[in-house]
Amino acid sequence: MQEIPHLNAPEPFPLFDLGAWSARQLVVIEQSLFRWVAGPADAPAPAGLGDAMRYAVLDGGKRLRPLLVMASCDAANGHSSLAMRAACAVELIHAYSLVHDDMPCMDNDVLRRGKPTVHVKFGEAGALLAGDALQALAFELLTPDDASFPAGMQASLCRLLARAAGYQGMAGGQAIDLASVSLSLNSKQLHEMHRLKTGALLQASVVMGAACGFASPAALDALRNYGAAVGLAFQVVDDILDVTSDAATLGKTAGKDAAQDKPTFVSLMGLDGSRAYAQQLLAQALASLESSQLENTHALRALADMLVNRQH
Amino acid sequence: MQEIPHLNAPEPFPLFDLGAWSARQLVVIEQSLFRWVAGPADAPAPAGLGDAMRYAVLDGGKRLRPLLVMASCDAANGHSSLAMRAACAVELIHAYSLVHDDMPCMDNDVLRRGKPTVHVKFGEAGALLAGDALQALAFELLTPDDASFPAGMQASLCRLLARAAGYQGMAGGQAIDLASVSLSLNSKQLHEMHRLKTGALLQASVVMGAACGFASPAALDALRNYGAAVGLAFQVVDDILDVTSDAATLGKTAGKDAAQDKPTFVSLMGLDGSRAYAQQLLAQALASLESSQLENTHALRALADMLVNRQH
Repeated sequence: MQEIPHLNAPEPFPLFDLGAWSARQLVVIEQSLFRWVAGPADAPAPAGLGDAMRYAVLDGGKRLRPLLVMASCDAANGHSSLAMRAACAVELIHAYSLVHDDMPCMDNDVLRRGKPTVHVKFGEAGALLAGDALQALAFELLTPDDASFPAGMQASLCRLLARAAGYQGMAGGQAIDLASVSLSLNSKQLHEMHRLKTGALLQASVVMGAACGFASPAALDALRNYGAAVGLAFQVVDDILDVTSDAATLGKTAGKDAAQDKPTFVSLMGLDGSRAYAQQLLAQALASLESSQLENTHALRALADMLVNRQH
Repeated sequence: MQEIPHLNAPEPFPLFDLGAWSARQLVVIEQSLFRWVAGPADAPAPAGLGDAMRYAVLDGGKRLRPLLVMASCDAANGHSSLAMRAACAVELIHAYSLVHDDMPCMDNDVLRRGKPTVHVKFGEAGALLAGDALQALAFELLTPDDASFPAGMQASLCRLLARAAGYQGMAGGQAIDLASVSLSLNSKQLHEMHRLKTGALLQASVVMGAACGFASPAALDALRNYGAAVGLAFQVVDDILDVTSDAATLGKTAGKDAAQDKPTFVSLMGLDGSRAYAQQLLAQALASLESSQLENTHALRALADMLVNRQH
């Protein structure tokens, strides 16, 4: 009599292949970034600026934020070519923030995605300008002069991105981060810093994808909650990986938070506590999706799962 | 018999008082900047970021770009409260560019508008972040979540500002400027640098003001030409004043272009040649206004005149 093979618990999304979906999206995302950064052949960015911008953006990065935009657009049955612009715009904001963060006056980091950082390669002034120009380009991508992209959606996307990038979002979180080196933040302060520093842009990715469609206010709220949980989980996992991974796996300098005496979720709640917290946030994110009553949330579900259970 | 007093040639705009008009606009511009930078009392920018942003923007500056926006909105009979947002947004982009330009890795300047520069006061990281956050805030101002500001205008304003600030505009010009220290640029290269570095944002100020109204395509073209001439004239006059003024009058370090061996219009065409060129550009600007067939161009005319004939 033949043995019945041991069956694992069923996969939660048996029909959705995140790898295949991501691969399809990434082809277009990379092509789009290549095309839009920085300038077409007949109007390239001058004096090395385009080279620095491309170096900062192309050939590296997990493109998590663009994937979240596209997944959320899928869920909201949105305008996918506008969402592709939004996806690239969010990535440009993320890329510019890395360029500026790595500069000597900020984190002074020399390795990023396994390559020398932009200021090492192009000088500090070149890095400063490339970052500035990438931020402007993000808003340019969101506002094509083409009536097939509804003006109301263009304006909404600019509004969402500007808030997430500015003092109420990423830049505000950076300021708290800068001010908090060698301080012991309590849990509330640490959450607030990360809600702004990384959470705001991740959440905006989700909301911007949905803003390319016509989700109901209730569904938008649910997606906003999903984005908040995923954004926080991302940082918790980042803190865990900073302790448990090496630079080769991470593609950037490992252990630098501890070396710089920065407060992290691991320093606050320990490694096991942080892992449990990440799983709890994943459960929250999935519950929010459930409550959205949107149908096509497979990619959003799978991305949340991947993001929490990633190894780098 | 009484002598008839000698009459000068009549003023070109006898009924328009630029000083009074500007004073009225400036009250609202300063109030608006104060209110919008950075954050209302119940949601201030965190960890000193708001202080650095306000320091960079408030209490200083001629507000030339905001005045151009408002003057152009007048000419196009536009939506004045949206134009006030556009005026402040352009000023935020200008202010952020000064903050980043002054940093040690760029011009390394310690005096601006008679005050210590932002990085001197708030540190380099603080200045970097404040500049980044000001750029984002500019796009936030342009996209209020309020249906009384037409979405089509919001999107147009973002499009115009993003292009003028980015690699095809100000940031591109900065890159050329950086790369050109100690090089002798020819006239075409010098024009291209300034067309991007300062001209693009000044021209955008004019076009954005008009974009808050419903100017005809022909009138828009004429305003675009006016903006290009005024933008170039501004830089020519700046180069003249850098040679002829002292720091107390200028409110910034004088003579620094020559000290840094930067190419200027004065080094290219001499002082007299530069003065003649500025007057020629003024005539072009006024002719463009004439050709616009817009009626209410008094403020634009007077601003062009003031800008070319200013002493600081």
